[in-house]
Amino acid sequence: MNRLARASSRVPNFVAAAAPLALGLALGLFPARSARADEGMWTFDNPPIQKLKEVYAFTPDSAWFDHVRLSSVRFMSGGSGSFVSANGLVMTNHHVGLESIQKLSTPEKDLVKNGFYAGAPGSEPKCPDLELNMLVSIDDVTARVTSAIKPDMTGAAANAARKAEIAKIAKEETEKTGLRCDVVTLYRGGEYHLYRYKKFTDIRLVLCPEQETAFYGGDPDNFTFPRYDLDVTFFRVYEDGKPYQPKQFLSWSPEGCKEGDLVFVSGHPGSTGRMNTLAQMDFLRTTQYPRSLKLLTALIVALEKYSARGAEEKRRANDTIFGMSNSHKATTGYLGGLEDPRILARKAEEEKRLKAGLAADAAALAEYQGALDAIAGAYKKLAEYTHRLYWSSLRGDAAGKALQLVRLATELPKPNGERLPEYSDAGLESLKLGLFSTAPIHLDMDEVVLATTLELAQKELGAEDPFIKAALGGKAPAEAAKAAFAGTKLADPEERKKLFEGGKAAIDASTDTLIVLARTVDPILRELRKRFEEDVESVESQNGEKIARARFKAYGKSQPPDATFTLRLSYGVVKGFEQLTARVPWKTTFNGLYEHSASFDNKYPYELPKRWLDKRAALTPQQLDTPFNFVCTTDIIGGNSGSPVIGRDGRLVGIIFDGNIQSLSNRFVYDEVQARAVSVHSAGILMALRNVYEAGPMVDELLGK
Amino acid sequence: MNRLARASSRVPNFVAAAAPLALGLALGLFPARSARADEGMWTFDNPPIQKLKEVYAFTPDSAWFDHVRLSSVRFMSGGSGSFVSANGLVMTNHHVGLESIQKLSTPEKDLVKNGFYAGAPGSEPKCPDLELNMLVSIDDVTARVTSAIKPDMTGAAANAARKAEIAKIAKEETEKTGLRCDVVTLYRGGEYHLYRYKKFTDIRLVLCPEQETAFYGGDPDNFTFPRYDLDVTFFRVYEDGKPYQPKQFLSWSPEGCKEGDLVFVSGHPGSTGRMNTLAQMDFLRTTQYPRSLKLLTALIVALEKYSARGAEEKRRANDTIFGMSNSHKATTGYLGGLEDPRILARKAEEEKRLKAGLAADAAALAEYQGALDAIAGAYKKLAEYTHRLYWSSLRGDAAGKALQLVRLATELPKPNGERLPEYSDAGLESLKLGLFSTAPIHLDMDEVVLATTLELAQKELGAEDPFIKAALGGKAPAEAAKAAFAGTKLADPEERKKLFEGGKAAIDASTDTLIVLARTVDPILRELRKRFEEDVESVESQNGEKIARARFKAYGKSQPPDATFTLRLSYGVVKGFEQLTARVPWKTTFNGLYEHSASFDNKYPYELPKRWLDKRAALTPQQLDTPFNFVCTTDIIGGNSGSPVIGRDGRLVGIIFDGNIQSLSNRFVYDEVQARAVSVHSAGILMALRNVYEAGPMVDELLGK
Repeated sequence: MNRLARASSRVPNFVAAAAPLALGLALGLFPARSARADEGMWTFDNPPIQKLKEVYAFTPDSAWFDHVRLSSVRFMSGGSGSFVSANGLVMTNHHVGLESIQKLSTPEKDLVKNGFYAGAPGSEPKCPDLELNMLVSIDDVTARVTSAIKPDMTGAAANAARKAEIAKIAKEETEKTGLRCDVVTLYRGGEYHLYRYKKFTDIRLVLCPEQETAFYGGDPDNFTFPRYDLDVTFFRVYEDGKPYQPKQFLSWSPEGCKEGDLVFVSGHPGSTGRMNTLAQMDFLRTTQYPRSLKLLTALIVALEKYSARGAEEKRRANDTIFGMSNSHKATTGYLGGLEDPRILARKAEEEKRLKAGLAADAAALAEYQGALDAIAGAYKKLAEYTHRLYWSSLRGDAAGKALQLVRLATELPKPNGERLPEYSDAGLESLKLGLFSTAPIHLDMDEVVLATTLELAQKELGAEDPFIKAALGGKAPAEAAKAAFAGTKLADPEERKKLFEGGKAAIDASTDTLIVLARTVDPILRELRKRFEEDVESVESQNGEKIARARFKAYGKSQPPDATFTLRLSYGVVKGFEQLTARVPWKTTFNGLYEHSASFDNKYPYELPKRWLDKRAALTPQQLDTPFNFVCTTDIIGGNSGSPVIGRDGRLVGIIFDGNIQSLSNRFVYDEVQARAVSVHSAGILMALRNVYEAGPMVDELLGK
Repeated sequence: MNRLARASSRVPNFVAAAAPLALGLALGLFPARSARADEGMWTFDNPPIQKLKEVYAFTPDSAWFDHVRLSSVRFMSGGSGSFVSANGLVMTNHHVGLESIQKLSTPEKDLVKNGFYAGAPGSEPKCPDLELNMLVSIDDVTARVTSAIKPDMTGAAANAARKAEIAKIAKEETEKTGLRCDVVTLYRGGEYHLYRYKKFTDIRLVLCPEQETAFYGGDPDNFTFPRYDLDVTFFRVYEDGKPYQPKQFLSWSPEGCKEGDLVFVSGHPGSTGRMNTLAQMDFLRTTQYPRSLKLLTALIVALEKYSARGAEEKRRANDTIFGMSNSHKATTGYLGGLEDPRILARKAEEEKRLKAGLAADAAALAEYQGALDAIAGAYKKLAEYTHRLYWSSLRGDAAGKALQLVRLATELPKPNGERLPEYSDAGLESLKLGLFSTAPIHLDMDEVVLATTLELAQKELGAEDPFIKAALGGKAPAEAAKAAFAGTKLADPEERKKLFEGGKAAIDASTDTLIVLARTVDPILRELRKRFEEDVESVESQNGEKIARARFKAYGKSQPPDATFTLRLSYGVVKGFEQLTARVPWKTTFNGLYEHSASFDNKYPYELPKRWLDKRAALTPQQLDTPFNFVCTTDIIGGNSGSPVIGRDGRLVGIIFDGNIQSLSNRFVYDEVQARAVSVHSAGILMALRNVYEAGPMVDELLGK
């Protein structure tokens, strides 16, 4: 799965019209809900200082923010994490680490199934292609980016100029600092910020529980609470072959948080749609989400069939099916949110409020309305070929790499600023880490993915579509996929390196069947992409900037930008919620794990690993009552998985791993009545490490002993 | 609270539009739902033999049905129960017994708070006014009832003739058999059956847990599952001063049921609306339910305020507030069901199917349509004064008894057949049991109820309304209520007996302020009631019969009649369900009680009594994993509380105590996708009695040792 799919797949948009505690609300028997809204994924250059002071009487200084920022890390595989020891220990979710754990596993030594604890530094295995980023500094480069655009430029020319300037800044800064430097588009083009990251690529696995324990309750329990998941994995960052000593890391709070506590989440939310225009929301509702669901459904069914072939196939497909199931649930939720009249009413109200805020300024109001109309026009154009754009695609790990190789051969010779952005110099090293990874590629599974998606594409586009004709070459989809995998050596990283180094000549001469397929369809895909960039992307950039201007005029910077898979700070309160007519507590306990398992007669996916059954009798009531998972109102979304939950004192009190199903509509409108972020509790992690996994040295390291 | 309020208050019509497991359903990953529908509250003269055979391959003989019927008892306070020992032990819910437990309690000896176990027969206290009924036989008296109606009678005359004939049959049969004999109107007048009951009035309390344990989780957990409630109470039936030896009782199944088991529920569902016409449903939706909610809300708020005066007030109001909260939640649910497009669509579809079934018979179809139109016309008439009818009422225990005394003085001198039906001879003895009960009447609380309802009535009806003018006599509502309670001795049962025995002369001469109030308003209430009987009740009876005829033609007797608080048999399967996107297990365990409590930090209403905390450490994992509560698909509704759950072998495997919130819409359309009946498990009851309450002799009696 690619990074964005993953980042947006986990942790929170569906809202069932769940009635809040009917009686209590009707009668006003429960204390009135506070009017506070813990909304916002804030950038570190503009934290919500005023709100924290007013609502929570909390006034952190800049050292507090630096401490939190520098303790946070981004997993380029699509997730978040944090430094939790002086010796480079990083904690994230098991499901964020899963891709790496899978890559370190073999049929004989299945770390996913059995869990893993290195015990000693020497026995910590290195992940083949994992990259971690730590945000070192932020600079506003808006003036420089926008100055590249001249008033007389067409939309497409402005778009190209903007991209070129962004690539130039990133490249210059990368060369100057040796850091990973990205220019991030914030407020839909209202601002451009340069983010400088220290990059780590020597990441080794230290400890992970069995997947059964990490993902306890499986897909049915996913996106729900109460929960009983030990969704944690520990890696260690190495530099120059030695454990890295971070300047800042989060001290562990052994007691963790309790109900009512103010907590913070520092992580990398992938993407939100809070500033979407109605045209953008309509597109998602009527077109994008329904077809995503169609694709995911087809792929899950096909991979379940693949899994049924045998234990090894099951092991291979496990991570992918999990991620896709997750995406399916999340997308269903997002779609539900967009169809929820309550959510739509709130969006309409926001729009009204914004226009009211601009009422005194006719020019600003006209610019705003003009921008809305332009974007609506762009989506009207897009409607003509959006299905071609979506379904014309080579999906699967190996086919994706084939297309990368084909494109690299064409793009690299071009000047940096003129390339497709994903092939610009600043990101090249990270791209190569993935492209040349020694992690196994399962060609049999990839063939299933390609066959399934080609079959669906043929159904959607018809036999006469240019992509279909090119990709199938007159064959049936399954036959075409079979032929594409019949003569490929791309599973071998050396082969990929050779093709990369051979440049355009090597690619043109290659008879590798996957390369041939990628070479055949690439011109069609490029043409569709170009059309989209001109018709929609450039219109969105230009007009996004105008909309941002309107919002700045109305609100100043009192609202954070939409999520961009860059570091953000959220805040909120540890707090239960009401679901249907019942109250849901703020936490679960370890005892609940045993209850949940027993109440399902220990059947899949609620069974417990032997380790947990064996330990039960020795656990005291106090240990059994240790908090395990908990919920809080912090504003999160996919990509926040693995984010540390931090108390006022800057210590770690938990780790985000999911959002409840009610939180999925937060993609478009934040709502704290029922939406909750779901975390593993710091006391619970200690209790499990100490009393179930017997990882004493690890506990000592976490507690700084 | 009166019987019907209670019978309809507990155990299940609200449906949140909860999405079924989005992914699973969308992808067909879970096994297809069986098409079987476990619908029906069947009369014992027409059990679903064919369905049981076809779907469950179960063919019980008549002895099986007799065993179940004779083991079942009706609690006239509004609930169900069963004989569970050879020595007259009866089990019901704590919340069904609560009214009696409350009456046996004093400020010094609070059995509700602390629980009770008699230990020895001599120490079992007698309930002041509890009546139990065991159904001995059923006869069809339809021909006799309908023969009393002559073709030339007006609707009102037919209604009177029907009532007179019913009263006559009941009286003759009561005199002939010495049994309690009721004529029950089934299929809305399609059939009339004579039910003969053995009646028990010497009922003594044997064991009840603390209310905290019985109603664990309080109002928030009510109508939900998972649940952890020991909602049981044991009474012993005495006859001639000795424990009664029932011919039939339910043997106890120590292991109880497991997932997938076929189970039966034998109990007394209060009322359903499955045969309602659209006009009747509209009336409930637009008029009746909304104003019930208004009334309940006002009363609960007022009684909460009363409770806050002190611990004794709190104790006094406890049961009433609980019952009202329950009614409020249930009514909200029923209303939700009526507003649910899915439910409405299923009703419309049913109507279509019925008409299609009659298509070949034009006369029948015309009669059916005519009946629908007549009922719709009746409700149109009712609309003119329905609010006067509803709000013109004296509410509260003492005021209700005052009105009974006033009416008895007028009604008893009339011939049996001409009286208001509730004062006919057949029911007189039961009525007197309540009227002369020595259970305490709390005049201060009753005054709050009267003041609250008068205030609301004044608001709804206006100052010039005849009832308002008569009831208030120019005073403000609170003043009028105060005056009504200033000079009443009705709290004393001897005073009530004196007034009853004094007949009309005594009532006319009485200066008791509550009697004076009842005397003043009674003519107005009677006139409204008469109007309703003529305009609606008689039309419903007459046309209900026609609708029943149409249904019999289309379906035969393959569908049971609506519930009538008479003995019915339901069947279904022990089975979990899906809620939002999560799976809910079929059972909970005792361990879950400890988890639930700990996860709410042991706060109200999730705290545990000391007894349970003290015992925890001594309980083994096996004991902790004992099933506690469970769910099944059996078709139940308010009044089924306390019903035994019975296995194929006729043994007791549990006791119904609630329905989940999704089951509330079953009032109008049965749906087994999410709707579940909630029970206490027989193994769980044994485990609690043995290991927590140390009630060894009770366990021995239940196991027949």
